[in-house]
Amino acid sequence: MSGADLDDELKQDDAVAAEAEAESPAPESESLDEENRLKPEFVRNVMDALDEEDSDRVYELVEPLHPADIADLFELVNEDERLQLARSIRDLMGVEVIAELNDWVRELLIEALPADVVAEIAEQLDTDDAVAMIEDLDREDQQAVLAELDPEDRAAIEAALSYPEESAGRLMSREFVAVPETMTVGDLIDFLREHRELPTEFWEVFIVDAMHRPVGTCALSWILRCPRNIPLYDVMSRDQTLIPVDMDQEEVALRFQKYALISAAVTDSAGRLIGQITVDDIVHIIQEEASEDILRLSGAGDGDINEPILITVRARLTWLCVNLATAILASSVVGLFQGAITRFALLAVLMPIVSGMGGNAGTQTLAVVVRAIATNQLTDSNTVRMILRELRIATANGAALGLLIGGGTTLLFSNPLLGAVIGAAMVINNLVAGLAGILVPVTLDRFRIDPAVSSAVFVTTATDTMGFFSFLGLAVLTGLA
Amino acid sequence: MSGADLDDELKQDDAVAAEAEAESPAPESESLDEENRLKPEFVRNVMDALDEEDSDRVYELVEPLHPADIADLFELVNEDERLQLARSIRDLMGVEVIAELNDWVRELLIEALPADVVAEIAEQLDTDDAVAMIEDLDREDQQAVLAELDPEDRAAIEAALSYPEESAGRLMSREFVAVPETMTVGDLIDFLREHRELPTEFWEVFIVDAMHRPVGTCALSWILRCPRNIPLYDVMSRDQTLIPVDMDQEEVALRFQKYALISAAVTDSAGRLIGQITVDDIVHIIQEEASEDILRLSGAGDGDINEPILITVRARLTWLCVNLATAILASSVVGLFQGAITRFALLAVLMPIVSGMGGNAGTQTLAVVVRAIATNQLTDSNTVRMILRELRIATANGAALGLLIGGGTTLLFSNPLLGAVIGAAMVINNLVAGLAGILVPVTLDRFRIDPAVSSAVFVTTATDTMGFFSFLGLAVLTGLA
Repeated sequence: MSGADLDDELKQDDAVAAEAEAESPAPESESLDEENRLKPEFVRNVMDALDEEDSDRVYELVEPLHPADIADLFELVNEDERLQLARSIRDLMGVEVIAELNDWVRELLIEALPADVVAEIAEQLDTDDAVAMIEDLDREDQQAVLAELDPEDRAAIEAALSYPEESAGRLMSREFVAVPETMTVGDLIDFLREHRELPTEFWEVFIVDAMHRPVGTCALSWILRCPRNIPLYDVMSRDQTLIPVDMDQEEVALRFQKYALISAAVTDSAGRLIGQITVDDIVHIIQEEASEDILRLSGAGDGDINEPILITVRARLTWLCVNLATAILASSVVGLFQGAITRFALLAVLMPIVSGMGGNAGTQTLAVVVRAIATNQLTDSNTVRMILRELRIATANGAALGLLIGGGTTLLFSNPLLGAVIGAAMVINNLVAGLAGILVPVTLDRFRIDPAVSSAVFVTTATDTMGFFSFLGLAVLTGLA
Repeated sequence: MSGADLDDELKQDDAVAAEAEAESPAPESESLDEENRLKPEFVRNVMDALDEEDSDRVYELVEPLHPADIADLFELVNEDERLQLARSIRDLMGVEVIAELNDWVRELLIEALPADVVAEIAEQLDTDDAVAMIEDLDREDQQAVLAELDPEDRAAIEAALSYPEESAGRLMSREFVAVPETMTVGDLIDFLREHRELPTEFWEVFIVDAMHRPVGTCALSWILRCPRNIPLYDVMSRDQTLIPVDMDQEEVALRFQKYALISAAVTDSAGRLIGQITVDDIVHIIQEEASEDILRLSGAGDGDINEPILITVRARLTWLCVNLATAILASSVVGLFQGAITRFALLAVLMPIVSGMGGNAGTQTLAVVVRAIATNQLTDSNTVRMILRELRIATANGAALGLLIGGGTTLLFSNPLLGAVIGAAMVINNLVAGLAGILVPVTLDRFRIDPAVSSAVFVTTATDTMGFFSFLGLAVLTGLA
C-alpha cells in the first residue's frame, strides 16, 4: 500500500505545486451530460448551425470537444448532414477522430474524399487503424488510396490486408519496440531516448533473439525501477503469450482477458516478431463480439444503427423468412389436429401457452450456453455435466409450470383431464426446450458453425412443433377431443 | 544495491505464482488445445487422479499450468472434487489463481477455508481483488476475515466495501503512483527506484497538486524517452479522464473504451486522487456487462454455469412465471374468438404464424436498441430518428412478409379473403413489433430501469396479443368466420 508514503513525499512540495493548474480538468459540462454523452441541446445547436450553413458557428461549437466526442457527434447528426459537418470542421478531423468513427460513418466520409486525402490520413494512422479505415472500401477505391501511399506504408498496409478479416494480422500494429536480450536497462533507456520514430505510446518492450523471435517481455514499470547496469534478460518475463498472426480476433481477445495482458507480440509462421496488439483494441473487440452474439441470437444481423437501412432490411428479412419456414412447419402440426380443434376450440386457445413457454425456456438455456461457449467456459471437458445440469433444471421448471398451469386449467374449466393434458405437455416441452437449448449450440460448435447465428431457429422449431404436437396429440390420445 | 538483490526483490512479490510460471514457456503444451483451452484428456487425467486420491499425481499434473489455467481447471472438474483439488495443490493456490477463479467457485473454496487463511490471501491481493474475494461472503464470515487483517489492509478493504456494488470504488486499486508536478523526469525515476513498496506493474504515473488532486498523467513510455532534467509538467498530459468513486462500473467501462484508456485516476467527492482503475479489470467488466445483456434479455438471470442449480432454477422460473402471465393474456385474446375458431379451424392453424413472426421482428429491434442504449449510441439526440428508422424497416418487412404469406395462403387454400386477412395482420403486427421493440426499452431507460431486464416481456405481450387480435379480429370483421 503506497498511498500513505506518497502523501508524505508530496507535502514537501506543497508550496510550488499549489500555484499551477488552477483550471479544472473536469470534462466540460456544456456539451456532455452526466453519463458523458453529448447533450441533446448541444447536438441540436450543431444541427441548427448546419441547417443555417453557418460553418464558423459549427466550428466554434465543435472545437472544444475531445476527438472521441467529435466522432460520436457524427453519429448523432442526420445522415445527410455528416459530409457538411466534416467540411465545416476540416482541420479538426484529425486521425484520432477518424480512428474513433463508427465504421459506416467513416465509410461515408472516406468515400466522399479524394484518394490522395485518404492516403494522407492513412499515413498518419497506426497500421491497424489505417487498415480499419480502408478495408471496407471497394477494391477500386482501395487501390487508388494504396497507390497514393508512400512505399513503406503501402507495403505495411498491403501486408495487413493479406491476412484474413478479423485475424490478428489485421489487428496488429507494426509499430513496437523490440531489442536484443544482450542490452542492459541503461542501453535500453538510451536507445529509447535516441529513437524518435518509435511509437508515441507503448507499454512493454519485446526482447528478441538473433532470429528476431521474441524471448521475453519487459513492462516499462520494471525498466523504470531497475538500475541501469542490469541486463534485460534478468528483468524480462519469459512467460509471454504469443499471438500467431492468423489467430481469430475473438480468440486473441480471450487470451488478453485470460492472462490480463496489456500488449502481446504477434509472430509469423517462423516465430518471428512482426507486430504487437495492444489492449485498447481488444476492448473494442470484446464489446463487438459480445454485441454480435446478442444480435445474431435475435437475428438482427450486424445491428448497427448507422448501417444503411437497405442492408438492415435485407439482414432482418432474411432471418424472418427462415423463421417463417419454421412457423409454417409448426402451423402444419396444428393442421394435423383441425378436427380436434373444431370439436373443442379451447385447445386452440390454450396451445399457444405450451409452445410459447417452451420457447422462453429454450431461449434461456440457449443464451447461457452460447455465452459459455463464446467465453471458453463450456468445453468438451464439461459438456456432459452441463447437459445433465440443463436436464435437471428443465425437469424442475417443467414440473413447477406443469403443476401451476395444469392445476389452474383444471379449476378454471372444471376439466381435470384438460388440466392433466396441458400439464404433461408443459413438462414434455420444457424437456425439449432444455435439451434443444444445449444440444443445438454444442453440436453447431463441434461443426465450427457459430452457434449464435443459427441456434435460435432450430430451438424454436423444436419447442413450437413439440409444444403443439404434445398438447394436441395428448388431447386426442386421451379422448379429450 | 547489486543486481541479484533487486532481481530477488522483484520476484518475491508473487513468489508462488512465479515459480509455477517459470516452467510453462510454451502455450502449445500437453494440457492446452489449439484454442488455448484445457484438453478434455488432461482434465480427465486430473479427475481420475482425484478419484484415486492420488494427490502427488494431481500436483504433478497441475504444477506446470499457468495460474489462469489452474483457475479454469477448477471450473471443469466436478463440483464435489473442487475442494479436494484445492487441498492437493495447496501451495500452487497463489493469489493469481484466486483472483482468476469464477465467483461461484471462489466462494465455495473461500467458505471452506478458516478466516485467518482467507485474510492471509487477501493481504497478498490488490485491494480490488481482495474486495472481489470477500464481498460475496455473508456478513459474519466477512467480519471474521476483516478481523484477521492487519489494520491498514482492513481499512482499505472496509473503505472499498463502503462503496456501492459495481461502482468504481469497488473496482479501484489503492496501489498507484502519484507524484507532485514539480518533479523532473530524473526525480521521478529516482523515486521509483527507491520505493520498493510501489505496485509491481503500473502503466501511468499520476501527477497531483498540493491538495492531492490529479492535474495530469504521464505514460511511462514518455518518461523513459525524456531527458532527466525535463520537468513533469512539460511531459504530462493534462487531458485526463477522471472517474468519480461512485460511478457505475458499466459507465467506467464505456469511458475506458471511448477514450482508449490504459488506466484512470479515481477521485473522491473533493476531487482528491484515491485510487486507480486499470484496463485489465475493465476487460472483464465489458465481457460481463455484455453477457449480462444477452442473459437478461432471455431471462436467464446471471446465467453462470457454475452457480448453484437452485439459484438457476429460481431465476429462470421467476422469468417463466412472468411470461406465463403474458401467455395467458394472449391466450385469453384467442378465447374471445372461440366461436370463430369452431366455425373455421384453419384460423387456429394459421394464427401462430402471425404472432410468432411478430415476436421475431420485435426481438430483432429490441436486441439492436438494447445494445445501442448500453453502448451510448442511442441517446436523446437521435431517439426520434431511430424510431422513424425502425418504423420504415417494420413497414418494409411487414409488406414483404404480408405479400409472401398472404399470396401463399391465397394459393394454398384458394381463399383470397383469408390471404388478405393474414397479409394485413402480418403488416399490422410487424408495425406493432417495430414500435414496441424501440419504445419499450427507450421508455424503461428514461425511468432508469435496465431495458435488458424487462423489455422482452412487454414486447412479446404486444406482439402475441396484437398478432392474435389483428388476425382473428379481421377474420370476424370481414365475415370470414
